[in-house]
Amino acid sequence: MQSHVKPLEWRSAEGLLLLDQRILPHREEWVTCRTAGEVASAIREMVVRGAPAIGVSAAYGLALEAGSSTGDGLSSRIRAAAVELRSTRPTAVNLQWALDRMLQLIESHEGNDSELSGKLIAEAEAIHAEDLEANHRIGRYGAELLSQRATILTHCNAGALATSGYGTALGVIRAACEAGKSIAVFADETRPFLQGSRLTAWELQKDGIDVTLITDSMAGHFFQKKQFDAVIVGADRIARNGDAANKIGTYTVAVLAHTHGVPFYVAAPMSTIDPSCASGADIPIEERSSAEVTHASGSGVDGQLHTISFAPAGVEARHPAFDVTPAALITAIITDRGIARAPYDESIAKLLAAPVV
Amino acid sequence: MQSHVKPLEWRSAEGLLLLDQRILPHREEWVTCRTAGEVASAIREMVVRGAPAIGVSAAYGLALEAGSSTGDGLSSRIRAAAVELRSTRPTAVNLQWALDRMLQLIESHEGNDSELSGKLIAEAEAIHAEDLEANHRIGRYGAELLSQRATILTHCNAGALATSGYGTALGVIRAACEAGKSIAVFADETRPFLQGSRLTAWELQKDGIDVTLITDSMAGHFFQKKQFDAVIVGADRIARNGDAANKIGTYTVAVLAHTHGVPFYVAAPMSTIDPSCASGADIPIEERSSAEVTHASGSGVDGQLHTISFAPAGVEARHPAFDVTPAALITAIITDRGIARAPYDESIAKLLAAPVV
Repeated sequence: MQSHVKPLEWRSAEGLLLLDQRILPHREEWVTCRTAGEVASAIREMVVRGAPAIGVSAAYGLALEAGSSTGDGLSSRIRAAAVELRSTRPTAVNLQWALDRMLQLIESHEGNDSELSGKLIAEAEAIHAEDLEANHRIGRYGAELLSQRATILTHCNAGALATSGYGTALGVIRAACEAGKSIAVFADETRPFLQGSRLTAWELQKDGIDVTLITDSMAGHFFQKKQFDAVIVGADRIARNGDAANKIGTYTVAVLAHTHGVPFYVAAPMSTIDPSCASGADIPIEERSSAEVTHASGSGVDGQLHTISFAPAGVEARHPAFDVTPAALITAIITDRGIARAPYDESIAKLLAAPVV
Repeated sequence: MQSHVKPLEWRSAEGLLLLDQRILPHREEWVTCRTAGEVASAIREMVVRGAPAIGVSAAYGLALEAGSSTGDGLSSRIRAAAVELRSTRPTAVNLQWALDRMLQLIESHEGNDSELSGKLIAEAEAIHAEDLEANHRIGRYGAELLSQRATILTHCNAGALATSGYGTALGVIRAACEAGKSIAVFADETRPFLQGSRLTAWELQKDGIDVTLITDSMAGHFFQKKQFDAVIVGADRIARNGDAANKIGTYTVAVLAHTHGVPFYVAAPMSTIDPSCASGADIPIEERSSAEVTHASGSGVDGQLHTISFAPAGVEARHPAFDVTPAALITAIITDRGIARAPYDESIAKLLAAPVV
């Protein structure tokens, strides 16, 4: 089952097209980015989101920068664009990883500017294609962990929309469905940005996968009622010891899963593992605008998009956008190179050292 | 510190005035109920909500029924109205308790219809006044449990708006502030009806109490960061063994509090204890419309109220409106007759047997 949706498309004549995830599922509109600066804005404003998808987008952003200007100082302009792209979102490491990979190409480049531009586009396309392939590998490894009939809780959107088009957590679910398993999904709505209701429910519905929407606050009740056979979520950065940063609310789900003896799986490509982080304490947690907590956007009865406020004016609100789930609460980490289990320092080191297949 | 807000007001010439909690904090509008049927609709549609407040409202509903008609069959018409009011919301036991108390008056009544009407109004006013007094007692008992400086997490609204005007959980916070303690409150927004952002943040802000709004999904992160000294919530029904039903999401908060060694307090009047329920398994859990999960209402940039959808059309959604927190996760139950602690079957039996002060 290929996903029917994809979050981005590279068109050499036009630039990077991004499906505007701020207005899904109400409208399917594509934003065209022609410069690295436009890609940076799109990442910052969450036109595109999801750790793998923003990594791929940032790579194309550098390719755009190389294509848009030539002559003296091209490589320093690309480096400046990389600085801007790198600053857009601090938590997801795939962004850093993709930029570093692109910059390495510049370091080693010895030809002229036009050759460099072609190389950068090819590298971004490789990152894009490899991510899609990694999703399928994750899916195949992860699907084996699920029973023939299973109800899975997921949080946020680690789906086609968060990646190159198949998904990490939802890739596992898609692969299990492809393997003939009977999978039902419960999707937390995932306040404040509502990735669960707006994106996960939408893309699963589009693929004909059984999905039930709940508010984040309901997960505990359904754990208590023994509704879930497993939890599968994505990750934005995984430390060497297995601690995993993911969308705010993931930690709460992990505590609930642990309390109820339900397996809690993290599905992510190797590019999400940050060997420079010894533990979750080293992962920076982005604090976003409190307006995203006091407001929400959606489609009104008039069919128009509205942003509404439901809090009193001037109220203080906090908005950590991610939290860290300690490795002790994670049953297994499903990567494109295989499955890591505790002790994670050993199993992750082994995966990092494994030859790329 | 008296609260500056109250959810209802009885005016003998007009009827029962209810502050419309569906449109707070955007507008302060009062709905006037002149019949028991109008009160039943208002409870069902959540114009008024909160276990104690709906108990008081239902009592006034029966008083309205008695006042609006006389002659043959008055007591059977009142009984029919009680059946309708009783059916509006299944979980909060205060509703049943208040109706039973009103019906007992009818059983024992020996005078004429006009005398009965007067007695029913007086009884509803007594229930109303006693609830306010109970809130203050709960506040005084509960305030002693809090340190001189404390940050409290609360879920939903167990405040002035949920009661006769001081609050149970928020009554404890108000009483602690009155006693000179330095209290900061974190309010879960409490999806789907957003009682935390729309009501709790609003009434605390109005009273000048330090309040920070978070989404339900953020609570775990802040527990992890050791932000909270205690959790205080209300209850809709408490079983003899101490299991407590409260707004959906409460159980998750209780699991988090237990995991992090933070005291978890339930504050409720004795009328919330249901001696007929041996355990939480006996408490009926209301399932409300899934449209409340796929939609939210608030104030748009045009200043108008809008209901927006943020889920794909036709998606399946579940909406259990309450969950049950097992007694084992509750540090203490703060009532108007004192504080109950484990073993709750003994401590609750003792409170139930205690003479009313």
